[in-house]
Amino acid sequence: MTRVFSGIQPTGDIHIGNYFGAVQNYVKLGQQFGKDAIYCIVDLHALTNPAAYDPALLTQRTHEATLVNMAAGLDPENVILFVQSHVRDHVELGWIFTTLTPVGELERMTQYKDKASTLESVPAGLLMYPVLQAADILLYKADTVPVGEDQEQHIELTREVARRFNNTFGATFPEPKSVHAKNALRVPGIDGQGKMSKSKGNTIGVLEDMESIWQKVRPAPTDPARVRRSDPGDPDKCLIGDYHKLFSDDETIVKVYEGCRTAGIGCVDCKKMLMPGVERTLVPIQDRASALRRDSDAVRGALERGANEARAIAERTMSEVNDKVGFYRLGRLAETTASTK
Amino acid sequence: MTRVFSGIQPTGDIHIGNYFGAVQNYVKLGQQFGKDAIYCIVDLHALTNPAAYDPALLTQRTHEATLVNMAAGLDPENVILFVQSHVRDHVELGWIFTTLTPVGELERMTQYKDKASTLESVPAGLLMYPVLQAADILLYKADTVPVGEDQEQHIELTREVARRFNNTFGATFPEPKSVHAKNALRVPGIDGQGKMSKSKGNTIGVLEDMESIWQKVRPAPTDPARVRRSDPGDPDKCLIGDYHKLFSDDETIVKVYEGCRTAGIGCVDCKKMLMPGVERTLVPIQDRASALRRDSDAVRGALERGANEARAIAERTMSEVNDKVGFYRLGRLAETTASTK
Repeated sequence: MTRVFSGIQPTGDIHIGNYFGAVQNYVKLGQQFGKDAIYCIVDLHALTNPAAYDPALLTQRTHEATLVNMAAGLDPENVILFVQSHVRDHVELGWIFTTLTPVGELERMTQYKDKASTLESVPAGLLMYPVLQAADILLYKADTVPVGEDQEQHIELTREVARRFNNTFGATFPEPKSVHAKNALRVPGIDGQGKMSKSKGNTIGVLEDMESIWQKVRPAPTDPARVRRSDPGDPDKCLIGDYHKLFSDDETIVKVYEGCRTAGIGCVDCKKMLMPGVERTLVPIQDRASALRRDSDAVRGALERGANEARAIAERTMSEVNDKVGFYRLGRLAETTASTK
Repeated sequence: MTRVFSGIQPTGDIHIGNYFGAVQNYVKLGQQFGKDAIYCIVDLHALTNPAAYDPALLTQRTHEATLVNMAAGLDPENVILFVQSHVRDHVELGWIFTTLTPVGELERMTQYKDKASTLESVPAGLLMYPVLQAADILLYKADTVPVGEDQEQHIELTREVARRFNNTFGATFPEPKSVHAKNALRVPGIDGQGKMSKSKGNTIGVLEDMESIWQKVRPAPTDPARVRRSDPGDPDKCLIGDYHKLFSDDETIVKVYEGCRTAGIGCVDCKKMLMPGVERTLVPIQDRASALRRDSDAVRGALERGANEARAIAERTMSEVNDKVGFYRLGRLAETTASTK
């Protein structure tokens, strides 16, 4: 059996790099594995990022992240989509894992070292982040984790935590593998300076309107070898060429690539030919987002159902875990009380 | 308003040092503050002590710790007595506090440094221990924490956590004070080598039978200056003198102290005169413990009620905390759903 788990940062502000790099893959895995594809808006993790976290905005961002992912094709009827803080077993299992994980292993995490090195005072939440992440995944006994390559070390730690728990308390958890989506190509930023990322300010938002996108595409750099209109270009060295591969149909791609190589079309022509594909991809998402924005109970209802579905799995795991760890259970009496009512 | 919180280690194996140093004080505070005296068997903390923790014994020890404290006078009808893992808000608030507490502060805790220095691999639970302890206390907005002096640094950290939360999210938590019981004298061990403690193997168990206690008291060292029966002694330099102050009535104490100082009684006489007080103090506790041992539903029922009472307070705090931290609440829809049922 395959069970997929992935965490989604609570930000509604997703760009096409997120969309092609992660969300599309979530959607595909959801179509393949249904309710065994579990997606969690990780609001508890968000607290460890003082730069991004704002108490006044967390609820709105959580709502918006849900909405955008639904608009982008994640179907909460089909998959499990929920908010981390709604399922309290995450922190409970996290605490148990904390008692099994050496401080030294956590201090060696590259992501921790990178983030800690920029801070004067390092919150303990940053150090414990991968332990909670291990709990997120193992709570659902997920074996498949679609994540970026930068998370590989955390997934290795998750396997180590699973092994340590299994060795101490008996076989309980799988050792999950990370999977990197085939089409998780690094979407280049609109400035042509490497990967698209919010911190670089070189993004095209999934919910951005077509005019605003055109204003970014129009002046974007292309193959630097193509100085004059009559110079032939290399579309494989051009970010607009890359974008065509994401957005355009095969016919357009062939036409544009040949046109560029033969100087049959200019860069502005090429950019204009990109826009129909962008529109065909993003406008339906934007329309669904608008509809969901008018119906906040649809989002809330999806999260409520998702929380119940997630809890049902989480509680089975925790029942097993609590027995193995040896916690005193009130269950027996509760049953007695219930049956005499 | 005063609200008292104290954690109780899940061990049924309590000795007279625990009894006079802590339990008696819990009982007294319970009589004074009733349901505002909250006592928590800290089974989640117990996991951080690999030397003492055994999955096969945790349930039994939790049960036994409850039973012994009830037998020693803690009345679950009067106070709130419950098990930490039954109220999941502890770890939830603990996670939030983790994101607010600098790693450096935790690394500076003396208890952590002492324990970590003895271990080859230091579990992160040991580092996070005082954060969970802060959550234990602040979850109930307790302002009064009866603890040993070795916990003073953790209570200071708790105040720091409270201040940090209040500064970040608005006034929410009190800054609790530790209180050391007036009669929390360091009960000397039966070997006369300092404080009674399980690790030193110099204890007299609260549930130990009288014959076994006498076998320990009879050969116990007394004032070393009193070499011969005819030498006068100093009962203030004698552990049996100390025990008389704990167990004997005033009349016996006067008689024994004078008899020792004048060599009117020998040390064996003095020890024999101790036993009626020991019996008067411990046998009723042992009788109540036996009765509770025959009625495990009484213990279980007390913990069930305690968990419900603790949860009621904890949920009020977490509702406030969750709103302030900004978590997405499902409540509104849940209410809507409930009202249309």
